Amino acid sequence: MRLASCLLALALAAGVAAAPRETKIPDSALATAAQLRERALADGTAWQVVEALTTEIGPRLPGSEADARAVAWAEARFRALGFDRVWREPVTFPKWVRRSERAEVLGAHAQPLALTALGGSPGGTVEAELVHFADLAALEAAPAGSLAGKIAFVDYRMQRARDGSGYGPASRLRSRGPSAAIRAGAAAFLMRSAGTDWHRNPHTGITRFDEGLTPIPSAALANPDADQLARLLARGPVRVRVALDCGWDGEYTSYNVIGEIRGRSRPDEVVLIGAHLDSWDLGTGAIDDGAGVAITMAAAHLIGQLPRRPARTIRVVAFANEEQGLHGGRAYAARHAAAVGKHQIAAESDFGAGRIYAFASGAPEYAQGAVRRIAQALAPLGIAHTPGEGGPGPDISPFAERGLAWAALRQDGTDYFDYHHTPDDTLDKINPQALAQNVAAYAVFAYLAAEAEGDFGSAPKGPVAD
Amino acid sequence: MRLASCLLALALAAGVAAAPRETKIPDSALATAAQLRERALADGTAWQVVEALTTEIGPRLPGSEADARAVAWAEARFRALGFDRVWREPVTFPKWVRRSERAEVLGAHAQPLALTALGGSPGGTVEAELVHFADLAALEAAPAGSLAGKIAFVDYRMQRARDGSGYGPASRLRSRGPSAAIRAGAAAFLMRSAGTDWHRNPHTGITRFDEGLTPIPSAALANPDADQLARLLARGPVRVRVALDCGWDGEYTSYNVIGEIRGRSRPDEVVLIGAHLDSWDLGTGAIDDGAGVAITMAAAHLIGQLPRRPARTIRVVAFANEEQGLHGGRAYAARHAAAVGKHQIAAESDFGAGRIYAFASGAPEYAQGAVRRIAQALAPLGIAHTPGEGGPGPDISPFAERGLAWAALRQDGTDYFDYHHTPDDTLDKINPQALAQNVAAYAVFAYLAAEAEGDFGSAPKGPVAD
Repeated sequence: MRLASCLLALALAAGVAAAPRETKIPDSALATAAQLRERALADGTAWQVVEALTTEIGPRLPGSEADARAVAWAEARFRALGFDRVWREPVTFPKWVRRSERAEVLGAHAQPLALTALGGSPGGTVEAELVHFADLAALEAAPAGSLAGKIAFVDYRMQRARDGSGYGPASRLRSRGPSAAIRAGAAAFLMRSAGTDWHRNPHTGITRFDEGLTPIPSAALANPDADQLARLLARGPVRVRVALDCGWDGEYTSYNVIGEIRGRSRPDEVVLIGAHLDSWDLGTGAIDDGAGVAITMAAAHLIGQLPRRPARTIRVVAFANEEQGLHGGRAYAARHAAAVGKHQIAAESDFGAGRIYAFASGAPEYAQGAVRRIAQALAPLGIAHTPGEGGPGPDISPFAERGLAWAALRQDGTDYFDYHHTPDDTLDKINPQALAQNVAAYAVFAYLAAEAEGDFGSAPKGPVAD
Repeated sequence: MRLASCLLALALAAGVAAAPRETKIPDSALATAAQLRERALADGTAWQVVEALTTEIGPRLPGSEADARAVAWAEARFRALGFDRVWREPVTFPKWVRRSERAEVLGAHAQPLALTALGGSPGGTVEAELVHFADLAALEAAPAGSLAGKIAFVDYRMQRARDGSGYGPASRLRSRGPSAAIRAGAAAFLMRSAGTDWHRNPHTGITRFDEGLTPIPSAALANPDADQLARLLARGPVRVRVALDCGWDGEYTSYNVIGEIRGRSRPDEVVLIGAHLDSWDLGTGAIDDGAGVAITMAAAHLIGQLPRRPARTIRVVAFANEEQGLHGGRAYAARHAAAVGKHQIAAESDFGAGRIYAFASGAPEYAQGAVRRIAQALAPLGIAHTPGEGGPGPDISPFAERGLAWAALRQDGTDYFDYHHTPDDTLDKINPQALAQNVAAYAVFAYLAAEAEGDFGSAPKGPVAD
């Protein structure tokens, strides 16, 4: 007996060692995924969700009265869509408010300018001459004190790209420009909007001020207004008045709102999809990110309508306050850090409502066979498999840093930055067919990941919270 | 001698009777017109003019400080472009001012709305429930008193068309809607903007109130905001707060600014081309009507650069305050009524900066041979001859009613109402190549009309002023 037991143990050990670890998608799941895909393309749930969110709630600035309405709306919507469990988790953050903003050229060419305060900007009124910079590097090269009593104007034009890659340098300017202006002594900071449009709708977005600096009024001009200032500066000195009434105002507690379609056999293992519930205040947050909320809610809802649930749980998270610093994503990662291994894989929809054109995952090699099978199921939607490209969405990234596996369903963002963070981010910018294609892709991905045998590499790394 | 004289007189009379009256374009003029056309296509004058007007002056609301700057600018520009005579003629009109405007949905779906006061609206703050009407006819059918304590909301959507024909019903709604709302007892009037765009930029424009009615606050919503109200109304009653601070404020005297390229042999006979110098206040008046000012100034300038002047004078009129009731056009017609016969023919450019696709003239039959020759010279620009279509431009129409012959150089206005009367009417909306095509067309037309032998039918009719 002892010898037999021992031999058995050895044989088992050898077996484990010999069989390579490989995550697999069962064939039976592929047929269901194909049905789900076709059903999603014909389904109007996502459109109904984003129509309701943008119409009934409208703009959802974190900490505003509409923030609370949006949380209640999301809970009710999850329930109405048949989610098995619905709950909220608190997210606390500083509250920023915008009251009014106004600017004008003074003197011989007097005229108003369309601009908007950057999130995080203090209020204040400044009348001063502009100093023109071509980009962030030029501003950062300005000597200390050289902008004393002046307004820095950075005239960097964002480039259009399907993958949104032009947003990197444009948003860096928005983040770092004000601090660079302060170091050079400026009284205010103006930038050409981080946007690719040609309308009088400026693009807001969060900025930050480096430790130890005294914040200055900071705002973005609509593209035609930045053009106008550049033309006026070519004629001679330009004096501008900027009057912002905005600023930080205490703390606020909002919520990540979470809904689950429970798995049939491994309900504690979670495939997470999500988007952010908050928006900037200028538009109604249709493409940023009502669409993402609608896509992921609808995808999980359609999975919940299947005759048989997938093995794992599908969890949809509507994150709080992404816009002002990933507050919802950070709170989720901190709260669930110990459960990173239970979160199999995650994907966030936060790049508008354009068609998904590419799919990839950061999962380890042993899971790439499963990733390829998911990609094959996505291919009829016009989605290419592009290994090694993309990354976790913004609200997933804090958790991904702690070891969560991720997938990227990459949307065509060619037009995204025409509307992003502007008054023009409204429902009419969403194409219902493209929205349905997104739902189909998320449904296929989430369903197959929830049916996979084996994992996608999620495992704790980095700091683990309580 | 007496017999001979008598016979001669008879012979002459018979000759006059026998030779049909026919206006002709000399062959020599056609070669020059062809050169002028090619030169205009390669010339940057119009772009420089509209760039300067929209940049240095910006918005030019009639009666504003910028109105006076624009008049001085236009005089200086005519002189700089080598016009032989430059002068101004006074135009007096009531002055309307816009100070602020704001609206919001109240209650469970609280959110701001993008709107703009209609020109001529009084100020005032109204909080009331909306009543939805599909179009002007529906509002006009509302019984007296039926809108007491309510806000009329007319949700008529303007149709896109190359010839701008969708503007007819949309601008009728803007003109007549407020009075219809008052008759039904409404406290305020809101309309979907008379525009074909999908941006958060509402379209202003003049309205009027019928005699004996007490004006009410009247405004236009951006198209996405009208969509939003329609969706909210589908859910139940909608209460809105509208706060306008605007209104009439005394009288103002501005000027028609006039420049002439004098004719070589018949300088008292005038071919008139023109556009209006004023604009609404929201944008910088690039397509409405900086483009027209630039096109007509540049066309006459290029004619002035020819080695030999045409027989007749080319007069360019930059009309004052077209937007609020053709004040400049009416003043010109009144002042020059006795000289209608000296004005051979007139054409106004006031439909943006899109390519001209059609040409026609209301000249009598005996002049249509000359009109056809002009059309042949325009054909290489892609311009079709469409007899019987079009009409005099707005500022020409008061004079045309008194007998002035007119020509229409009809522009492609497919996109015109995306920007017209909005903050988005800025320089970037003008295509320099299309602008140059317009200049070429106006130069060819004006030159050939100024070289024509015989007239285009201008003759006094209707009231003749002092």
